[in-house]
Amino acid sequence: MLRTHTCGELRINDVKNVVTLCGWLQKSRDLGGMTFIDLRDRYGITQLVFNMESSAELCEKARKLGREFVLKVSGIVSERSNKNKNLATGEIEIIVNELTVLNSSETPPFTIEDNSDGGDDLRAKFRYLDIRRNPVKNNLLLRARMATETRNFLSNQKFIEVETPVLIKSTPEGARDFVVPSRMNQGQFYALPQSPQTFKQLLMVAGMDRYYQIVKCFRDEDLRADRQPEFTQIDCEMSFVDQEDVLQLFEQMVKHLFKTVKGVDIEPLQRITFSEAIKQYGSDKPDTRFEMKFVELTELVKGKNFPVFDNAEIVVGICAKSCAEYTRKQLDELTEFVKKPQIGASGLVYARVNSDGSIKSSVDKFYTADDLQEWVNAFDAKPGDLLLILAGQNEETKKALCELRLEMGTRLGLRDANKFSCLWVLDFPLLEFNEEENRYFAMHHPFTSPKPEDILLLDTKPKEVRANAYDMVINGVEVGGGSIRIFNKELQSKMFGILGFTKEEAQNQFGFLMNAFEYGAPPHGGIAFGFDRLCSLFGGENSIRDFIAFPKNNSGRDVMIDAPSAIDGKQLGELGLGVK
Amino acid sequence: MLRTHTCGELRINDVKNVVTLCGWLQKSRDLGGMTFIDLRDRYGITQLVFNMESSAELCEKARKLGREFVLKVSGIVSERSNKNKNLATGEIEIIVNELTVLNSSETPPFTIEDNSDGGDDLRAKFRYLDIRRNPVKNNLLLRARMATETRNFLSNQKFIEVETPVLIKSTPEGARDFVVPSRMNQGQFYALPQSPQTFKQLLMVAGMDRYYQIVKCFRDEDLRADRQPEFTQIDCEMSFVDQEDVLQLFEQMVKHLFKTVKGVDIEPLQRITFSEAIKQYGSDKPDTRFEMKFVELTELVKGKNFPVFDNAEIVVGICAKSCAEYTRKQLDELTEFVKKPQIGASGLVYARVNSDGSIKSSVDKFYTADDLQEWVNAFDAKPGDLLLILAGQNEETKKALCELRLEMGTRLGLRDANKFSCLWVLDFPLLEFNEEENRYFAMHHPFTSPKPEDILLLDTKPKEVRANAYDMVINGVEVGGGSIRIFNKELQSKMFGILGFTKEEAQNQFGFLMNAFEYGAPPHGGIAFGFDRLCSLFGGENSIRDFIAFPKNNSGRDVMIDAPSAIDGKQLGELGLGVK
Repeated sequence: MLRTHTCGELRINDVKNVVTLCGWLQKSRDLGGMTFIDLRDRYGITQLVFNMESSAELCEKARKLGREFVLKVSGIVSERSNKNKNLATGEIEIIVNELTVLNSSETPPFTIEDNSDGGDDLRAKFRYLDIRRNPVKNNLLLRARMATETRNFLSNQKFIEVETPVLIKSTPEGARDFVVPSRMNQGQFYALPQSPQTFKQLLMVAGMDRYYQIVKCFRDEDLRADRQPEFTQIDCEMSFVDQEDVLQLFEQMVKHLFKTVKGVDIEPLQRITFSEAIKQYGSDKPDTRFEMKFVELTELVKGKNFPVFDNAEIVVGICAKSCAEYTRKQLDELTEFVKKPQIGASGLVYARVNSDGSIKSSVDKFYTADDLQEWVNAFDAKPGDLLLILAGQNEETKKALCELRLEMGTRLGLRDANKFSCLWVLDFPLLEFNEEENRYFAMHHPFTSPKPEDILLLDTKPKEVRANAYDMVINGVEVGGGSIRIFNKELQSKMFGILGFTKEEAQNQFGFLMNAFEYGAPPHGGIAFGFDRLCSLFGGENSIRDFIAFPKNNSGRDVMIDAPSAIDGKQLGELGLGVK
Repeated sequence: MLRTHTCGELRINDVKNVVTLCGWLQKSRDLGGMTFIDLRDRYGITQLVFNMESSAELCEKARKLGREFVLKVSGIVSERSNKNKNLATGEIEIIVNELTVLNSSETPPFTIEDNSDGGDDLRAKFRYLDIRRNPVKNNLLLRARMATETRNFLSNQKFIEVETPVLIKSTPEGARDFVVPSRMNQGQFYALPQSPQTFKQLLMVAGMDRYYQIVKCFRDEDLRADRQPEFTQIDCEMSFVDQEDVLQLFEQMVKHLFKTVKGVDIEPLQRITFSEAIKQYGSDKPDTRFEMKFVELTELVKGKNFPVFDNAEIVVGICAKSCAEYTRKQLDELTEFVKKPQIGASGLVYARVNSDGSIKSSVDKFYTADDLQEWVNAFDAKPGDLLLILAGQNEETKKALCELRLEMGTRLGLRDANKFSCLWVLDFPLLEFNEEENRYFAMHHPFTSPKPEDILLLDTKPKEVRANAYDMVINGVEVGGGSIRIFNKELQSKMFGILGFTKEEAQNQFGFLMNAFEYGAPPHGGIAFGFDRLCSLFGGENSIRDFIAFPKNNSGRDVMIDAPSAIDGKQLGELGLGVK
């Protein structure tokens, strides 16, 4: 080893020991007679001391070193007179008697500090320098810790890690696949997996009983903010279980992660059905760190000649506690907020419950004090509260109110990134109807099992069939989802029929799974967690990008290595391909 | 849970307990009054008993069940009168009082037994049934165990698991990349990584200090037997180390794996230089489970008018202990063996050392008894030994003799799959000259560091420059390889020059790495292990295919899912591609 210790481990007990450290020059201070250097590595920072009086030559040499130079130093550990309590190594320093410059460095394009002066683009291009910064480094360490603890938990539960293939078969269902032209089978393509779904089901047919994998998946979508073309899942599947078994086991997993990684004991997970979630929060991934549930006023407010409400499919609102004092300006901001195109409401009705109990609304000319009192009763609002009400089409209005609720939660400081509210959302619809294509799509995927008691509705009222499907939601973020699978080939075949697959299409795309179901498939179910997202949530941040070592930008480019890029004609020729 | 226990866990202490098991019908025996069923799951086999006298209906039902039906049974654990000592559960059986058929099964296309009657192709197509067989299942369990213990060891050594990207940039150097057309950047392609080499080096520049990953890699080569287009590596890199540090740490890792996975204490690793390995074994991956080292006779045998030896660049042989009694037929077989096109020798000379010390050779008309005695002395052969000698061009002859040595090792039972001989091969040449392209290629890769003492030879005698590169070889199989890397941009730039890259090409392909080296790269080095190969070696088998859950065949096809396959024109259009 070039070093005896790392820059993070020396303590007061090591005083008088002769040590050798390696690392990067973080900071250098020249105080005339003395030069101090902060030497940094992954493990911490240690202060180096060069003394002009005792070793002028060495001190002169040290003074010439720039930021991010790579150094190897030997010296004696000494107690600091001026201790730094913010630093684990802050009680000691190294009196250096040997200095080797292992490598020089150009001046970095941005400061390697917790708060860097570098913009996003610059830091992305020089990602290898950005990772030197504590915030990014700590995110990657957190991620590694999460992976380790996930594996520990699942191994203890007898889950077996099995690697499924990356070069698989393209399936038109769902999002777009990335494809890989085959040189040995010209004109044919592999696809990169959007998930190992069919393989994990085959592993259950194969009798592996409990499978897991932390695995890269791929989706060629137009990237919205914070989506990556390649992403990582914790993918799990188990046999001989019902939904309750899966819920309990993975609730334990998440508890284990919070406990071991964050030192946090979380509450038993709340449970809510899909339809209740939509009704109470306008979302199937509600942020339950705060209440502020929806209250529907549709019937209550009609017939008072207020056309906006009279013509609305739904009138629904929330009660913002202690916001009655909101200024005109603040209320205007909220109105602007809901009218933004991405929110899409046409306006916002409010009613203040004043401290004296009187009520002041934006629609006073249509509603009497008694009318408004009925609203207040419906919300169980108290003096000082503010009612915020939207009206319109059912689905759109709930979505808009969901956004307003989140906005109010943020304004009221109810969405603390270090507080965690976890819940299961249950009983998802099995199918959703796509007007454009005039057919049903599987809400989760075509292998999701309907609830046994709803199977009879498949032919008559497919919209009403509920699935044995579940999502885990933390702080309003869907971190995982899964289902109990169909394991019976007749039912699977029926599902493909409902989804508009011809027999040939089903056989062509999923024949191997249907065939496998002929040979004794066990009851099984599973779940997959979005690992990047789970890490960012544990790290208390919104963006997944800083929890990925080498992320891509919104155009799917890696700006550091400059990929994708053109390939030479010879290679294209070998693949039997032409670029149009 | 549908079950209270697995089929592998009930013991004599559980007698009288009421239990519920789930699993597959392995075997059914109808003995008139009684029907016995072996119920199988991942964990084992438990015997079920149905009694015609006490519950005729249940027994009748049980008799109708076919192989691989999926069952759920409840009953009482009882002591067996006829105990099976070969089975962990062999002391008990279940007197069944409830039977549910969870799923039926077609008759499987081959027997689900340790020795199946299914051929390779059939088992590949029905891989999900093949995995139900103990040998394949146990290979996958071994693999999972290997991954867990690898991670345990590396985590304890402060290695951090970092995921590197799968969608990267194509580089013409080395083997052929699989490419992925980008829809969002038409005409451009990602490449799938052949290894995370440059990313792990960037992580060292980023200060991550110790990195590892068990990671899928991809190579679009014409597949030889037992090569897979996607394969898995244990990929590691460390900073502030020299070669000795890497050797010692990964020797410990392999020891840890042997100890924890196989319960075997291995000897400290032998070390041999590349040039010694070639000289003694004709291979840089010698099987050192047995000696039988090469002995060179070139000078000794010349000038006796035997033209084959007189005209040979090299005459070299091995001594097969106690093989003097080989029959004419056996010797003919060996001659045929070395004359096979893939071995390529023109003939084989032998000399028997008879039990009385007399020597009988196939070239007695050219060599006297005294001449032959000199040969015997050179080999230090004993009465009863057999000398096998080849002659010809240096490299080809050594390669052929290497094959003959392995063949003799196999014939003599010296290559026991359960005996392990591990060694480091050191001091590889940095460069190899390619006659066809008339230029040097990097023997490992362009980032491998020359030995400091050989750097001066780079300009004058590049062929003689040795690299700080090392391979780990177990039982004649290269399981891992790595090097200390160049971390200085001038040296890296010089290397690219020697490899015939123009400045522009180097910048275009590896610019991000060269740029990174401007900002304080630490000294670093690493290693990568072929995980599939390592697992097959630990499993005592030659083929890696049975240690991969869903392998591809020699044409790169997954015959189970039938991939690769055609994709529809719409998708091709979106990618801006045409199939020629």
